This record gives sequence, structure tokens and C-alpha cells, in this order.
Amino acid sequence: LLTTLLIITILFQDGYSQRIRNEIDIPDILGYKTLKCDFHMHTVFSDGKVWPTVRVEEAWSDGLDAISITEHIEYQAHKEDIAVKHNRSYDIAKPRAIGLNLSLIKGAEITREMPPGHFNALFLNDAALLDKPEWQDAIKAAHTQGAFIFWNHPGWSGQQPDGKARWYDEHTELENSGMLHGMEVVNASEYYPEAHQWCLDKNLTMLGNSDVHGPIDMNYDSHKGKPRPVTLVFAKEKTPAAIKEALFSRRTAVYYNNTLIGKREYLEPIFYNSIQILNSTVVLKGKNREYVQISNDSEMDFELTIAGDILELDVPSTFTIHGGKTVIMAIRSKEEIYQGEKSIQLPFRVKNMKITPEEELSVVLELNVTQNN
Amino acid sequence: LLTTLLIITILFQDGYSQRIRNEIDIPDILGYKTLKCDFHMHTVFSDGKVWPTVRVEEAWSDGLDAISITEHIEYQAHKEDIAVKHNRSYDIAKPRAIGLNLSLIKGAEITREMPPGHFNALFLNDAALLDKPEWQDAIKAAHTQGAFIFWNHPGWSGQQPDGKARWYDEHTELENSGMLHGMEVVNASEYYPEAHQWCLDKNLTMLGNSDVHGPIDMNYDSHKGKPRPVTLVFAKEKTPAAIKEALFSRRTAVYYNNTLIGKREYLEPIFYNSIQILNSTVVLKGKNREYVQISNDSEMDFELTIAGDILELDVPSTFTIHGGKTVIMAIRSKEEIYQGEKSIQLPFRVKNMKITPEEELSVVLELNVTQNN
Amino acid sequence: LLTTLLIITILFQDGYSQRIRNEIDIPDILGYKTLKCDFHMHTVFSDGKVWPTVRVEEAWSDGLDAISITEHIEYQAHKEDIAVKHNRSYDIAKPRAIGLNLSLIKGAEITREMPPGHFNALFLNDAALLDKPEWQDAIKAAHTQGAFIFWNHPGWSGQQPDGKARWYDEHTELENSGMLHGMEVVNASEYYPEAHQWCLDKNLTMLGNSDVHGPIDMNYDSHKGKPRPVTLVFAKEKTPAAIKEALFSRRTAVYYNNTLIGKREYLEPIFYNSIQILNSTVVLKGKNREYVQISNDSEMDFELTIAGDILELDVPSTFTIHGGKTVIMAIRSKEEIYQGEKSIQLPFRVKNMKITPEEELSVVLELNVTQNN
Amino acid sequence: LLTTLLIITILFQDGYSQRIRNEIDIPDILGYKTLKCDFHMHTVFSDGKVWPTVRVEEAWSDGLDAISITEHIEYQAHKEDIAVKHNRSYDIAKPRAIGLNLSLIKGAEITREMPPGHFNALFLNDAALLDKPEWQDAIKAAHTQGAFIFWNHPGWSGQQPDGKARWYDEHTELENSGMLHGMEVVNASEYYPEAHQWCLDKNLTMLGNSDVHGPIDMNYDSHKGKPRPVTLVFAKEKTPAAIKEALFSRRTAVYYNNTLIGKREYLEPIFYNSIQILNSTVVLKGKNREYVQISNDSEMDFELTIAGDILELDVPSTFTIHGGKTVIMAIRSKEEIYQGEKSIQLPFRVKNMKITPEEELSVVLELNVTQNN
Repeated sequence: LLTTLLIITILFQDGYSQRIRNEIDIPDILGYKTLKCDFHMHTVFSDGKVWPTVRVEEAWSDGLDAISITEHIEYQAHKEDIAVKHNRSYDIAKPRAIGLNLSLIKGAEITREMPPGHFNALFLNDAALLDKPEWQDAIKAAHTQGAFIFWNHPGWSGQQPDGKARWYDEHTELENSGMLHGMEVVNASEYYPEAHQWCLDKNLTMLGNSDVHGPIDMNYDSHKGKPRPVTLVFAKEKTPAAIKEALFSRRTAVYYNNTLIGKREYLEPIFYNSIQILNSTVVLKGKNREYVQISNDSEMDFELTIAGDILELDVPSTFTIHGGKTVIMAIRSKEEIYQGEKSIQLPFRVKNMKITPEEELSVVLELNVTQNN
Repeated sequence: LLTTLLIITILFQDGYSQRIRNEIDIPDILGYKTLKCDFHMHTVFSDGKVWPTVRVEEAWSDGLDAISITEHIEYQAHKEDIAVKHNRSYDIAKPRAIGLNLSLIKGAEITREMPPGHFNALFLNDAALLDKPEWQDAIKAAHTQGAFIFWNHPGWSGQQPDGKARWYDEHTELENSGMLHGMEVVNASEYYPEAHQWCLDKNLTMLGNSDVHGPIDMNYDSHKGKPRPVTLVFAKEKTPAAIKEALFSRRTAVYYNNTLIGKREYLEPIFYNSIQILNSTVVLKGKNREYVQISNDSEMDFELTIAGDILELDVPSTFTIHGGKTVIMAIRSKEEIYQGEKSIQLPFRVKNMKITPEEELSVVLELNVTQNN
Repeated sequence: LLTTLLIITILFQDGYSQRIRNEIDIPDILGYKTLKCDFHMHTVFSDGKVWPTVRVEEAWSDGLDAISITEHIEYQAHKEDIAVKHNRSYDIAKPRAIGLNLSLIKGAEITREMPPGHFNALFLNDAALLDKPEWQDAIKAAHTQGAFIFWNHPGWSGQQPDGKARWYDEHTELENSGMLHGMEVVNASEYYPEAHQWCLDKNLTMLGNSDVHGPIDMNYDSHKGKPRPVTLVFAKEKTPAAIKEALFSRRTAVYYNNTLIGKREYLEPIFYNSIQILNSTVVLKGKNREYVQISNDSEMDFELTIAGDILELDVPSTFTIHGGKTVIMAIRSKEEIYQGEKSIQLPFRVKNMKITPEEELSVVLELNVTQNN
Repeated sequence: LLTTLLIITILFQDGYSQRIRNEIDIPDILGYKTLKCDFHMHTVFSDGKVWPTVRVEEAWSDGLDAISITEHIEYQAHKEDIAVKHNRSYDIAKPRAIGLNLSLIKGAEITREMPPGHFNALFLNDAALLDKPEWQDAIKAAHTQGAFIFWNHPGWSGQQPDGKARWYDEHTELENSGMLHGMEVVNASEYYPEAHQWCLDKNLTMLGNSDVHGPIDMNYDSHKGKPRPVTLVFAKEKTPAAIKEALFSRRTAVYYNNTLIGKREYLEPIFYNSIQILNSTVVLKGKNREYVQISNDSEMDFELTIAGDILELDVPSTFTIHGGKTVIMAIRSKEEIYQGEKSIQLPFRVKNMKITPEEELSVVLELNVTQNN
């Protein structure tokens, strides 16, 4: 009935020609590329509300490098209308991912009661093999395919009524058999301090993912400072293989809500690669106030608190280095106790860079100061 | 396998509790309610990319009062995965519409080559009855159900290669048989001046709709001054029956891109119900500049151009009365030719209120002025 | 040398014709008008950095009804260039205030070391009379003119090194002699809980002011959720006399940083006059989630926390009613313990409405619910 | 009366410690630094409304590298309060400019009736020497000091009632005597096409300046896409001397309202240094649509229009490469007329880069395309 021409023109009518991508500005570190990834999301093929290609287009617009669509193996909200096929959303999304040069990683969500809860398996060959009555068999089926397996939202109130992550024997069993490689420290808008600590103690990979079900812009708003959480992967290159290597090597951090969570070894270079003190030297005259200009190439607003006494200078006890901007730090000589040039170390803690659930990253700003009375 | 508890908790996890609605601020007029409606959109049940409930949630957030999901009768892009059921998206969306107090009108899109092109039929009882080999039969099947039938995007380049709407004998046939009640004067980002003029000449209802296929926020952005086009329906109350009566009575206008299109009888009261001159009188002293404060309760930025000579005053030749704000118009006595109080009529045209494809709405601002030399 | 024509054309070139005013949307209460006022600011005539007319134009744009320019009596930073005249900035600003229909109140800042610190005097006839060697004489000179006198920034770190407001004998002396009528509970970005409590204990008027020195937009940004603090004055009409009456009658509240500070008797009607539950009744079916729609006509985002057990319903423990929007509260029947219609009281505390330094305003949302199993 | 301590604490209270600078992202070209400059502005020392230090702080926040405060020599609106001193605003602003590392250039505005109108003189030693009865003597006094002299707002309606720039004998006289070096092609929100053409014909330097009188944020809003106009100076380094050399060498362009005005030799490298095609090759399959990703490191939104037939591909006839983003250009093979790899030149005009009043910059995007049928 319908001619091919009509179909083609309808297909061409999707307004996609002027889509815009907002890059996530977090610098590369230590010779690795800092890839921005979201490894947890759903479509109409489980209990999500969008077609699989939408997840690719959203991710491209949000500045991501890699995603995994992780449909529930055990739960299909729309099965009355949509036949259950565990690999189908990957297959539908794949051509769009190729066209947009986004890494699409085949994954699935093993969805069980607690314990052991929900687990994502990435880098699958065939997600359908995970459809098993026993959870142990489902996880084994992922492990056999070489999958990277992580525990989702360990403190989710749907399974932990008091919102506190709880470690069960089942998790020990998984850990001991090498089938637990990481955990979501952040899921959607929730942060799980227990999971954060377990990742440090057990050397597991930290992840932060959106777990988005509806259109991404109904839950997050990258234009309004409320972007989706992402897993930063420090990879040798932008390929699925390199991402897999980095995930198994625990080279990740979690970025959400203007906060970075990760090991000191990754957060420290992110800070120092982002900021720059523009004054080669600051000339102080008596007790006049002078201005230090600090630029920040990342998009994060770094929130600094003074972390020690500074003998020579009055400096603000707290200040923010805004993302993508240059800011001013006002300083003033405390006492006219010296003459000439001097290098001064200013110790700060960065409130929104967490290296443990309790500890913030310590940094030092180094100023060259010349006192002229 | 899965317990009911697990399903319930997953269902409860959609973050929907803090959704926000942005009202569309266009005043009621002439004793009617000004309802904001979008009568053209798609879901995964034809060639759209979202689940039907998403259309209801988006519409609620965008400040709409009524929508119709209008799946293609003849074209299902996802039929390999989703069975063809013409009433299914309405049935799925309905409970959510009830919960959010949004009027959901059952509709469908008859999707044919030009002529006669695409037509939406609203207020259907059974959309499946429109699935006929001949287009005449499809439209008749809608008409028999008492549907309101309108021609979609008459100048769409997919069917009108030069982007110009063309009237065919088939349209005359429909018009003469009382089966053509309106036209899209605006579809997505396109405005069709030919269709605008036909609506005026043939007394047809003007409509403006989004025709959205993907998530609404990927194509429109209500936060950035690029909201979806809507059909304003001037209805006796907020019910489907009242909307139907208003549509058949041609009581509509089209609102898109900070522009209103409609008959003078509707646009005039929208303007006068929106703005207010706050100064009871403006005291002029010699040739000093004085300020007239004008508030605008609507969300539209009215763009005014002077439309005639004003003997008494210098006024700006163009100025904008911003939506939701109070603005200032600077005036100055031209000649000191009078004393005492006087009422002065300032004639303007409103650039973004179109009463025909060529004619802008004329308005008059009336000032009370007192000259004190 | 210069012709009059040239001067006139230069004067006309200030681009002022299209200034925009953003109203501050806080409702009127108890039969009073809620006037938005800033009673503390400086110009080049003391140590500010703008010409006096700028203060009027800024205030008009920021939605204010009344201001006072309060130059330091004892300190003129620019006296090398600008002659000291204590009434001059008022005289310069007055014609612009008349033109913009803004109440300009003559004031000044008595600027002394602590104790007793800085004091603003409003409704002066002649500010020059306050220029006295002894602070007692300066305040008496204000009092003699019938001035409303309030203590500025009682906890300002420039005079209270630990940032804590301290009450001295000098303040007791002023209070006892009826020369202390109010206090700044908020100055710029600082809130003083001690001053807040003193206002309650001693029945003094609470004020919140900007104390702006530079251009207002360099310190505050009304477009970005960081507007200047204002004093809300609940006045019988919008006149200086009515403002004076209201100030002496302690009918004020402080609005800053999306927070209201004031007595329960004023904050309660502000809340209830702002919000409206749109559902006449909510129909609950079994344990399905249903949606309550709540609109908020004010610009404040009210941040609610549950404040008691609710037997019948699950409701969110915290949620926000966004300013100028309609939001959704998801509810669900806890137990199917009743049938038919019922009125349910939901007790909340409003986190950003402070009636004492420790106590938040308690409110009740009343729902009509119908249970249909 | 006031102790030093009080003065110091007041001085320290200006909230300046957290000022933010928004860089203007326009790339360096041809080995030169692209400096962002505004060479026309006023303070309270002529008819402006801010203190001189404000101009420095505003310029720093707006991402400028150099400014000149150019008070009227012949007109002081506030002389009743402020003594006339032609070098005073420079002297007051200078220490703040040093502290913020901004180049402050001493200038003044010779303000005469038309002809010859208003002229700015930059790089003065003593502005007071320009205070002469005859305009010829005033300009000579600037020239003698080695000043760079340019004609301000040649089409300003205050002196050209029809808004059209007019060339008088007086201008020929200035040109012939080497005392006219440039012109404002843009002043505030006005563009003068006649001046643009004269600059091209007579080899004069093009300038675009704000001519701001009030606080900059009352007239411009860099956060809302309405920043002040600036003169881009292509200088060997960021020093006043290098700026002077570049101005006399005509190495400038004008940037305002998302539009660049300048010679082809400067605009061309700005475009090509800003954008990058990210796909190394685009693989076309049959007539499928594919996506070209183009990034734009500048802040300008480049608005492109197709400028010629492209045999091989369907491409959009217009599209925008948004500033600081990556965008997509959808392409499709027109005819399956070739196999294998090929380089295709896509000719466009950039609507918002004007190399003459009538001519837009022509650019070519080069794609590597591989056709696989």
C-alpha cells in the first residue's frame, strides 16, 4: 500500500540533523584517556520507556564515549506488547552507535531478590544465556563469557529498607569465586558510602550510572547542573577492549552532582591537570590586598577549604574555582616579615573530591610572592 | 521466579514523585478557557520512540491540558517487535492521563501519499476501523464515528518538494463532503502560509502541533524559548466534549515560537487581557523624558512597531513587552502645545500576532498624560 | 562651546527605554500589601561605586517597591574628588524615583566602632544633622527627626572577629531610651541567629538588606537564584508613611537565598496564600500510586519535610514545591482500611521558613481522598 | 574619629574575593594573539554612572585584555559634584588594572558637533591637553602625543538624524593630515555599513566598542547571549605597545552580537582554527543517511548556508555549528555513482562573518567519504 518513497520521507523527518553534543570536560590523566561512560540503562525491551536508538542519541548529546544498555533478564514490563528477546535492544541500537562513533557494549541486568540483589554484566556475547532459574547459574553464564560483573545500587531502599548497603554471604561467595568485579557507588541520585568503602577494602571497581528508565531529560538536566552520573574510565584508548581492560584494572572514578569519587591516584591528577595559577608572581605591597588568578579548564566547580595555617598570608578560608572560568583569590600579607621573592605553599582540601567516604582530597596551591614594602 | 514485592519496588522506582509542570501563560478570553493542546504525536506503536505513558507525562510537564496520540494507521516502524494494535497506545496511556488530570483524546493518523496526504482524526471510538485499503474509506470510517478531521502539514517537503502547500481535487472532494474540518497551519518548526489563508477563506479550524516522534526534550526545549507548538482551544470548559465543540466551531489559535496565529477576534482579547499600563497618568515636564510602565501577565514577548503618527509624543518606533515582566516605554512631549490632562491613543502593530499571512494585529495603547511646563 | 542640542542627544542616549522589571512574587497577606524593600546601600557619595540614580534603576529592575540610600555619615572614600554633602545622593536620585514610581526614603548610616557599631536611620529630614563627634549625639539627632533606627550587621566579622553578634551595654542604653527599633537579621550573604533571637525576645523589627557598594549585578544575580536580600514590609499601602508605620509596628519579614525569616503570624499566611492543592479529591485504588497536584503562585521553592506519622498514606518524606510551578506529590494507600471519602491532614515542616533560629514553620496539607478497592 | 582599623575592615568588605571571569573564546591567528578590547567607555568623571575601578572589574569579568576609559573632554554631567580632571579616572583605575593584569590605555573622547563629531584618542600622555576651544586643536593635541585617533559612532542618530553615516570635508581634512586612523563600525548595538565600507576603501582600522555609561550588566548581559561589542586586536603580545602597533597596522576585527566583521585575511583563520571535522572518513552505504561530527572550539555559533551545488551528496542547505559544542551534519549519497574513497569539498557561506557590508565569508568543509554499496 505505502510506497517506498513515503517510508523514506517519513524516516528522514526526524529532525536529527542539528543535534548538539555537550562534551564533559574532565581532563585526561596519567597517559590515559578519561572516557565518560554510563553502564546501566533500560529501554522498552525491559521496563524502560524509550526505543533503544534513543539511548545512543541521548548519550551522544550528553558527551558520553561508551554506554551499555542493560535490560533486566527476569523482568519485562511490556511483554504483553513486546516479545522477550534479550539481545534485541543491543541489535537495534548498534547501527546508530556506529554512525555516531559511540562505543556500545552488550550488557544485561541480572535482577534478583536480595541477597544477592541486582548485577550488571558487561561485554556479553549472548545475553540470552543469562536467563536461568538460579541466580548462581545466571552469574556463572556471564562469567563464562568473560563478562565484567558489578553489583548494582547496593543500598537501594527497594532492597535495603533502611537505605544502608548490607554485605551477605552470597557476596562473599561471589567475591571469592572471582565473579564480583565492581559496585555502583552511585546509582541515579543515590550515593552508598558502604559500597565506596568496600571498593577500597576489597579492591573493586567503582561505578556510577544513571539506571535511567524514561527519557534522560525527564530525570536529569545537563543544562541545569543536574547531569546524569557517569563512570570515568581511564583507558589506553577509546575502544571497547581498552574500556574492558581498564574496568578489570580498577581504573575508574565516579562523577556525579559536581562531585568526584575515586582513588587519590586518579583524583589528584584530575585536579592538577584542570587548574592553573596565572600569575607568575604576586607582588605584595605592605598589607594591601592582591589578587591571584586561577583558571580551571575542567567543568567542575572545585570547592576548596583551607587545611592548615599559613604563616605569611591571609587567604580566604573557603573558595570555589568555577568550572571553565578564571577566578580570583584575594590575598594579603599577614606580617611584613620578609622581603623579596618567596614560594608559599597553600594547603587546601577539595570538598567535592572524595577519596574515602570520610576523606577529601588534599591539594597544595603554590604561589610565588614578592614582598615590596 | 520474581516475587510481587520485587515488581512493586521496581515500579515505584521511577523518580516520578517530583515532576514539575510549567504552565503556559496565555489568558482566558471571551468567557472561554484557553486550553493548550497538542493533537499530533507518535509512540513506539507507530514510528515514535517512546512508550505511550511518556507522552502524557511530557504533556503534563509542558503545561498542556489535552493531547491526542495519533499513530499512523498504515505505517508501523517497529512491527517486527511490536504487534500492530491501533488502539493500544491510547489504552496504555489512559490511566496515566486520568491520574494527571489530562484530557487524552483518541486519535489516529491516516497516512497516504499526496494527494490527499496525511490526516488526523480525533475523538475516535475505534481507530482500527480506519485501517482500509482506500483512503476515502479510511476517512469515511473516521467521519462515521463523528471525528474531527484535519489535514496535517500541508506544505511538508516530504510530499511537497518545494515546501509549498498545494490544493488538489481530493481536498475539494473532502471539503464538499464535510470531512475536512481543519488544517495544521504549523507542524513542528514549519509554518504554512497557504494553509493559513485557506483556513480563513474556507472557515476551517487552524491547528499547530508538534508531530513529535522522539522524546519531546530532544526536539523542543521549553526552558530555552523553543517550546513545542500548541493549538490553543477556546473551550467552555476543560473536557473532551467542550474541546470537540470548540474545534468544530473553529475557536482555536496557533501558538509557536513566540508567535500567535489566529483570527483577530481571538488575538485581540489575548493581547488586551495580557497587558496593563500601570501609570494612571504620566506627568510630562517640558521636554523631559518620562516613563510608562507596562506589565505583561502572559508569557509571550509582544513585539510592537509604531503604526501611525503620534502628534503629541516621541515614543519608541519599536519595543518589546516581555512576557511575565513589567517594561518601560520612554516618552517625551513633542511640542509644548497643550496644558493639562489628555488621553492619547498610541497605535501599534504586534509583529508576532498574525491575523492573516500578511497582516499583523493592530492594537492601541491608551495613555493619560498631564503636561506641566 | 557645546550646544544644548548636543547635551540633549547625549542625555537621551542611555538605552534606558527597554529596561525590564522582574517582580518578586510573594503574596500579600492579612489585608496588607507585601512591599519588597532594601534599606541599606551606598553610592559614590560615601564608599559605593555607582551614581545615585543607578540605585533607583537597579531597584526598579529587581522588583523593589522602596529603598533607602544610606551613605556613611563618618566615612567618604572619594572625598578627594567628591565634596561631602550628606543629603546629596537622595536629592540626585529623587527625580528618577518619582519617574519610576519607587519610594525613596531618606536615610543615612551612622558608622561607629563596636560598641555600638553601625546604625541606619530612615525617614530623615536632614542627614547632615547626624554628623556629630559623639555617637550618642548622632543617634539622638536621628531620633529627634522621628527616624526609624536599626542596628546593621550585628555579627559582621569586621567588628565581631568570631562572626558572633554580641550585645553591649550601649545597646541596652539605646533600647531603653527607645532609640533602637530593629536589627539586620540578614546583611548581604550573612545571617545572624543571635540578632534573630533578640528581635523575637525584645520585639524589634527584623530587616534584611543588601548593603551593596558596587553595581548590584556584580554582587547578586537575580537571574541565577542569587538575588539580593530584601525586607518584606507588610504595609497598609505603598507609601513611605505606610512603610514607616509598618516598620515601627514590627510588621516585616526577611527574604533571602530562597529563605523566609519572620514571625509565624506572617510566614503562615505567605505559605497558605501561595500554594493550592488542585485535586478536589484523590481517588485511591488498592495500593496504586496516585498523584496530588500542588501549585505555587509565589516564586519561592518551599522545601517540605514530613513532620509526623500519617496512618493512612505513604507520602514522600521530603519534597519541594517549586516557585511558580505545579508539582506532583505521589501518594499510596498504606492499608486498605477504609472505604469512601475522607479528609486527611498531612503535617509538614517548611525547611526554608524560619520562625526562630531553630524552629521551622509547621504547615498542614489537607487532602480529600476516596478509597475504591 | 574613625580608626584605621574601621577603614580597613570596610575596605575589605567588598565581596571581591570570588569574582569570576568568562573568557571570550575566539582563537589566536597567524601567529598573533587575539586580544579582546573595549576602547570606549565612561565613568562618573564625564557622564557615566560608575566609579572608574568598576570599569576594570567589569572588563576583567567579561574576559577583556585591554580597555580605555574615554571621558568626554567637553562634557561633564556631574561637574556640580565632581571637579573636572581629565586624567583622574585613569589614575584611579590604574592600580586595580595592575592588580588584575588588564591593560589600561589612557584615552579621551573629543566631543564635538557634527561635523566632525566625536573622536576617541588612545595612548595619551596627558588628556588635559585636549581641552581646547577649537576641535582642530584638540585633535592636533592628541596627534602630537602619538595618539591613535578614531571616529566614534559615525551614523549615530544623535548627529545623523536618518541614522546614516555621512562623510564631510572635515573628515577628508583629518584623513589627509594623517589624524584619522580608524572608525567605530559598531557602537553599542548599532552597526554602520557606511563606516565599514570606508574602512575597507581608505584602509582604516575597524573598531567595535560598548560606549557604556551605566553598569555594564544593565546594558549588556554576557550570560544571555547579549555581550558588549569588542574590538579584536591581533597583536604580537599582550602589551599596550603591541596593541598600539596592531591598531596602527589595521590588524583588528569587530565582534558583536554573535557576528564577526573584518577582513577576509583575519576571519578565514578564525573560522578554520575554530572548527574541526571529527570523522576521519564517513562511510556511506547506499542512500542511508550518515553523520558528520563537527566540533567548534570558539564560542561563536557559525551560521552556514550552502553556496554551490554538491554533485555527490545531499547536505543541509543551512546549519549552525554551535559555539563550544560538537554538532552533526546529516549527509546522504545523492547517486550511487562511485565506489571507494573520495574527498569532497562542501562550499558554504558563513552568514555571521561579514567581510564587506554585503559579502559573507566563503568557507569550504572537506570530507573524506567512502561509498560502500
